[in-house]
Formats: sequence, C-alpha cells, structure tokens
Amino acid sequence: MTYIYYLDLFGTFVFAISGILAAVDKKLDLVGALILGFVTAVGGGTLRDMMIGETPVGWMKDLNYGLVIVAALPVCFFWKKIILRLKKSWFLFDTIGIGLFTILGLQKTLALGLSPIIAVLMGVVSAVFGGVIRDVLSNEIPLIFRKEIYASACFAGGLVFLAAEYFFPGAMINILASISTVIIIRYLSVRNQWSIKFNPLS
Amino acid sequence: MTYIYYLDLFGTFVFAISGILAAVDKKLDLVGALILGFVTAVGGGTLRDMMIGETPVGWMKDLNYGLVIVAALPVCFFWKKIILRLKKSWFLFDTIGIGLFTILGLQKTLALGLSPIIAVLMGVVSAVFGGVIRDVLSNEIPLIFRKEIYASACFAGGLVFLAAEYFFPGAMINILASISTVIIIRYLSVRNQWSIKFNPLS
Amino acid sequence: MTYIYYLDLFGTFVFAISGILAAVDKKLDLVGALILGFVTAVGGGTLRDMMIGETPVGWMKDLNYGLVIVAALPVCFFWKKIILRLKKSWFLFDTIGIGLFTILGLQKTLALGLSPIIAVLMGVVSAVFGGVIRDVLSNEIPLIFRKEIYASACFAGGLVFLAAEYFFPGAMINILASISTVIIIRYLSVRNQWSIKFNPLS
Repeated sequence: MTYIYYLDLFGTFVFAISGILAAVDKKLDLVGALILGFVTAVGGGTLRDMMIGETPVGWMKDLNYGLVIVAALPVCFFWKKIILRLKKSWFLFDTIGIGLFTILGLQKTLALGLSPIIAVLMGVVSAVFGGVIRDVLSNEIPLIFRKEIYASACFAGGLVFLAAEYFFPGAMINILASISTVIIIRYLSVRNQWSIKFNPLS
Repeated sequence: MTYIYYLDLFGTFVFAISGILAAVDKKLDLVGALILGFVTAVGGGTLRDMMIGETPVGWMKDLNYGLVIVAALPVCFFWKKIILRLKKSWFLFDTIGIGLFTILGLQKTLALGLSPIIAVLMGVVSAVFGGVIRDVLSNEIPLIFRKEIYASACFAGGLVFLAAEYFFPGAMINILASISTVIIIRYLSVRNQWSIKFNPLS
Repeated sequence: MTYIYYLDLFGTFVFAISGILAAVDKKLDLVGALILGFVTAVGGGTLRDMMIGETPVGWMKDLNYGLVIVAALPVCFFWKKIILRLKKSWFLFDTIGIGLFTILGLQKTLALGLSPIIAVLMGVVSAVFGGVIRDVLSNEIPLIFRKEIYASACFAGGLVFLAAEYFFPGAMINILASISTVIIIRYLSVRNQWSIKFNPLS
C-alpha cells in the first residue's frame, strides 16, 4: 500500500513543522529547532518501537523520514507566515497525521500478535507521544493534558479501524472511516469545549 | 507464587491512584488523569523492560494490569475524599507497592543473568521511575529529588532481599523482610527528616 | 583498543560530575545527586542502546561504569571548590567526553549495519542526551536548546570521523581528528557566540 507510505511521510513532515514552530516560539536556535522537529516527528513511533521491541526503530531503516524532517526546516523559515495563517487547514493536516499514525502503530503492534486493545493503545502512543516529548523538552505541561480531546479522538479512531477491519479486512475505506472519526471528534470537541464540560474530577 | 501476582496488581492499582490524584491536583481532565495514572503505574517497569531488553514490555502481555488502572479512575472519582483522609494507610500501601516493585524488578533482571547489583538498581528503577515520569509530565522537579529517602529505602530493601535469598532461597519470609526494611527506613526517614540532616552537599 | 575503553570511563566520570554539580545547584540531597550523576553519565548511551536494540544496555554488562559514577560523588564532595575553579580545563574535559561518546555511539551503530548518517545521529544522541535528561529532570529547558553549538559540534566531529575512517580505516589519528573538530567548533562557537549570530528563525 504505497499511498499509506506517502501519507506516513506527510504526517512526519507535518509533525516536524509543529516541533519547529514550537522551537521558534521558545526562541531556540536552528539546531535546537531541528532537534525539536525531529523529536516531535519520530518521538511517538520511537517510544512505541522500543516498547514492543521492534528495534532498530523504524525511521533508522528508511532515510526518507529523516529527509522530510530536514526539509521542514527551510519550509518553516521561508513560509512561516503562510503556515501560521493556514490555521484551519493546519488543524486538518495535523489531525490526518495523528489519525494515520494511530492506524500505523496499531497495525504494527497487531502484527506482533499482541492483544487488539494493546494495539489501539500503541496507536495512540505513536500519535500523541511525539507531542508529549516536544512539550516536556520545551518545559511545558504536555498539551495532551491541557486542551482538546486529542488522545481520546485517536483512541476512538483506533477502535473504529479495528471494528472496520473485522468486517471488511484490508478495505481502504477502513482507513478513511478511522481518520474521519478522529477529525470529527476533534472538531466537535474543540467547537463544543468538551474537555471542560465533561470533567467529573474538577 | 500467585499471591505475588495479586500483590503486583495491587501495587499497580495503588500507583495508578497516585497518578490520578496528581492529575486532579493539576486540574487535568478525565483522559489526562487516565494517562497520568497509566504512566505512573507502568512507567518504571516499562523503562526497566526496555533497558534489559524484555520486550514487548510486561503489561502488554497481561490485560489485568490495564484493567486495574482503568478501575482506579472511578475509585478516585467516587471515593476521593475517603482516599485523601486515609493518609496514613496510604503511606503504608504506597510503601508496600514500591517494596514489591523493587523485588519483582530485581528478580526479573537476575533471571537474565545480569549482576546482582545491577538487579538491585533495576529494582529501584521499577519502583521509582513511574513517579519520576509522573512528575516530569506534571512539570515538577521529581519528588525523588526533593523529599524522603524514597530510592534509598528501595535500594536497602533490594539488598536485604538479595542477602536473604542467598541464605534461604525462595523463602516467603525474604519478601516480608525486604518490604519491612523499605517500610521501616521510609517511616524513620520521614519522622526524623533524614534527607535534611545527612546532606554533606548542602 | 584499551585506551578507548579508559577514555570512555573517563568521559563517564566527567559526565557524572556534571550531573552531580547540577544536583548541588538545585540543592538536592546525596541520593538525588547520585541519581542525577548516573542519569547524566549513562542516559545518552542508554537511549541509544534502547533505540538500536542493543539490550541489556551497555553499562549493565560492565560494573566499572557504575563504579566511576559512584566515585564521582566523594570527588565532588571533597574537591567541589577545585572543580569549580577548573572552569577552563573542565570545558576541555567535557568536550573530550562528548567527542568520544559521539565516536563510540557511531561505531556501535555502524557495526549493526545501519546507515552512516544514522550512525552519526546515534553518536550525537549518545553524547548529548545524558545532558538533556539531566536538564529535564532538573525542570530546565535543555541546555542544548539554549546555548552553544553543542550538538552541531558532535555532528561535525562524527562526519570527520566517518570521512577519516573511509580513507584510513582504523587509524588512531581519526579519533584525534574527530575530537579536535569537536573542541575547535565548540571553542569558536562560545568565543564568537555563533548560536546568537546565525539564527534566521529569530
């Protein structure tokens, strides 16, 4: 499935940009920006691979991942204003990225014979821990803990994918259904401020 | 040794509650609380397993660990006040938890043929790094660096267990002796403020 | 190559001292200082080994690494003033340490058959992530993001080593050339404040 491979590279690119923009925000230098972009883009998948024992971790075996991350640096430098103005499209790109990372992490874990629920969890780890590491290195409380139903949207998307695969194994529509779930949940949660309303712990 | 298995699940449950309570303290939402509970409960063992190469890490192969963590969420929600009032018993539960995690981490490392002193260290890592990760994600300097002889108590408990196993291999009393060591050292250190008194670096 | 082994132990010792001094700065207690020294000294190599799948990680199989770290504690205690006065020599020791860690990490990764550029990256990870973890645990934005061309110097040193090995495989001069590169770049960057001048992102 080559189109998935290109979508994966695209997701890596989007995550790298989000890491570099965080670095600009923190007034880091060029190298700091590159490191933060790298960590944000591959951090989640690296943690997943170390946990499930798929080492050397994935991006080490295919240099294209490193290349798109390095390519994100001049893009941020020359088109920074355009990217920041793209806010709405950006939200869409980012959500496609996390939806895709969820599915890829899920599939990789299932292939090792681990339980489906653990596979969904590892999908979520792949999708959200790059951002968590970015925030920890920037000395912020991870965004995942502060705003939006980010992890929950991935979790739901993973469940939808599992269910769809059960009924239509290998159908391309499964990926679309799963990513649409992530997009819809995230969109509705931001619009309706769900994380504030449904919090019995507060 | 089934009773150890149940004690391990109990320790996981206690650690999950401590993570969820930290999340409540930081005003995180439900999902944030679940993630912080999860990370606190399995973080130390996960790091140990990745370091010694026992992957996929332990909790992925037995869903009961995930279940007791999820179960900790409604417990915190409905009985929060009771848990906070239980302060003294809580200190005991928590100390039994770290003592047990130390012994289990130690045994798992020894079984791989690594040196006994490395096994004790990995026991300490299993016991304390869940809390370290909880504190890092909450943007706090880890508690382990600020208060109480937490890590030292685990280290001493690990040494006592090693010595006891040398003389009485496999005796149940070894676990009791080790956990009692952790409890006594931690109790005395809090009561007598040892970490403040014995610090030639200050 | 035994002299490399001793240089590696020396680098570990230097990094342990830098971790312990950070702990003194943050007013941690003795055990906190030991933990921070340990993490700073072996953190980078541990992360590298977990990522490339060389587990159990290196320092677990050779107790000398643990010994030099423990030995750093009394050294910091008795000669703290002398160490702080040694600022210039310290800069040299530290730079030799990161240069050496870069080369060792690079060689270990190459030996697994991974791409040379990934090997250079893993060399940089070995050299700088101990410090990154030290800063994260001390609740600081990692130094690597704030000052000095630390990671870039390692990267350049790694490239020089690769090129030199290509022309003169196994020559001792390669290591000298590589470490000299790291020292010169770092020295020039601090003197000329390169990180401030060359930052198109600011």
